[in-house]
Amino acid sequence: MAVWGERLAGVRGVLLDISGVLYDSGEGGGVPIAGSVDAVARLKRSQLKVRFCTNESQKSRGELVALLRRLGFDISQEEVTAPAPATCQILKERGLRPHLLIHDGVRSEFDQIDKSSPNCVVMADAGESFSYQNMNKAFQILMELENPVLISLGKGRYYKETSGLMLDVGAYVKALEYACGIEAEVVGKPSPEFFKSALQALGVEAHQAIMIGDDIVGDIGGAQRCGMRALQVRTGKFRPSDEHHPEVKADGYVDNLAEAVDLLLQHADK
Amino acid sequence: MAVWGERLAGVRGVLLDISGVLYDSGEGGGVPIAGSVDAVARLKRSQLKVRFCTNESQKSRGELVALLRRLGFDISQEEVTAPAPATCQILKERGLRPHLLIHDGVRSEFDQIDKSSPNCVVMADAGESFSYQNMNKAFQILMELENPVLISLGKGRYYKETSGLMLDVGAYVKALEYACGIEAEVVGKPSPEFFKSALQALGVEAHQAIMIGDDIVGDIGGAQRCGMRALQVRTGKFRPSDEHHPEVKADGYVDNLAEAVDLLLQHADK
Repeated sequence: MAVWGERLAGVRGVLLDISGVLYDSGEGGGVPIAGSVDAVARLKRSQLKVRFCTNESQKSRGELVALLRRLGFDISQEEVTAPAPATCQILKERGLRPHLLIHDGVRSEFDQIDKSSPNCVVMADAGESFSYQNMNKAFQILMELENPVLISLGKGRYYKETSGLMLDVGAYVKALEYACGIEAEVVGKPSPEFFKSALQALGVEAHQAIMIGDDIVGDIGGAQRCGMRALQVRTGKFRPSDEHHPEVKADGYVDNLAEAVDLLLQHADK
Repeated sequence: MAVWGERLAGVRGVLLDISGVLYDSGEGGGVPIAGSVDAVARLKRSQLKVRFCTNESQKSRGELVALLRRLGFDISQEEVTAPAPATCQILKERGLRPHLLIHDGVRSEFDQIDKSSPNCVVMADAGESFSYQNMNKAFQILMELENPVLISLGKGRYYKETSGLMLDVGAYVKALEYACGIEAEVVGKPSPEFFKSALQALGVEAHQAIMIGDDIVGDIGGAQRCGMRALQVRTGKFRPSDEHHPEVKADGYVDNLAEAVDLLLQHADK
């Protein structure tokens, strides 16, 4: 189809979202999305450069990669852009000492960070740890700071687990923003800085790169605002209404990563 | 002081917020704010009409009144305007069957309401019941509805307990609004309908009534938008920055309810 030839012409690098594109998380770690293990392998055998760009903030990169390898994916830690390491960089640069409202699974990423006398709050997808008590503690710390700083790893509305849709960190960010009368700084998609760091690691220009994700706002809208192209997969948190989103229109919609890779291998870099 | 004479001229009815004005809630029920028990008694002995107007949504009116009477206040259930009974009225009128995200203490108010096959979510200040699991359940129900309806009892940012500031239902409303892409309907202050029903029960016109509260937005701003006057007390959740709020200016600031009543008895209805 000529239309795909035009849409994918000149693509030299691919950024892949992980949750909802490679696999659905859930009980026992999760399950690969049909065709995605093979699709990643085919992509990596091609001339296209590949990098993974995730807002995963419940697990450390090490744990995430170990899980994906168990599920059969060819992936290594160095190929992953994730918000926790990017946040540690910011904390160090600005002399910030965080109170952490995070999942235990990602705590090890902050091992080297000074957490005494907190002067900011860092929040991530804490899952079950988003108890009233933990939220209230973070709220009270922010209210006691003269210049409250709230850093959030992503601001997703929800994601999909095998058991259904799950509230993501963005909902809880909105709660603290409203209660404290402040605005959070977001590290992760759709922040342009985050996409740019992934592009730099990928080693291609924005106009030569394409993002493949299941989040119409965080993945598709965010990548497009950075000058990249973006395809939305109809897996993960995709909902049919996404194809009529009032603000964001993907460069293409595909049933899953396998179809996206079929099209890329046929049309990209031509 | 002539200024208070002008401010309070013609006042014939007084609406009193409860939490942060009469008492601070907390361990063991809470403690009266110094001077408030006597201030309510003096007000009720005066020519002024008195009614209590609260967003309390953790307790039924029966429990709240019983608690306040134990603390020494002269108050009865019939004198209280509260959001739970107002919500039940709305549910019945519109044929809505709620999933309840509420504190167990207020559950009895909904005893007579059909809760089978929910077609809306009603949320109140659930306190510790704002677990991730309970929030996610409410989220999933809303996402499955074709026309999701979210009703919130109040939208306060926080309130003050004896142990410190506590996140209020408004923060959690924002979380679900963002996650679901919807806007909640608020029953309670600062909703004009809610103030009007309190005024009607008080039996005076808006220009003859004054609200006394600790919430610059919910109490003061809300009452003023209905044509009432409003005093902010420097107790409860009051913060010094409230006196320089960018949008709301109270008709007066007083140290506590006792001072407000001193001034009212001296200057009102003159």
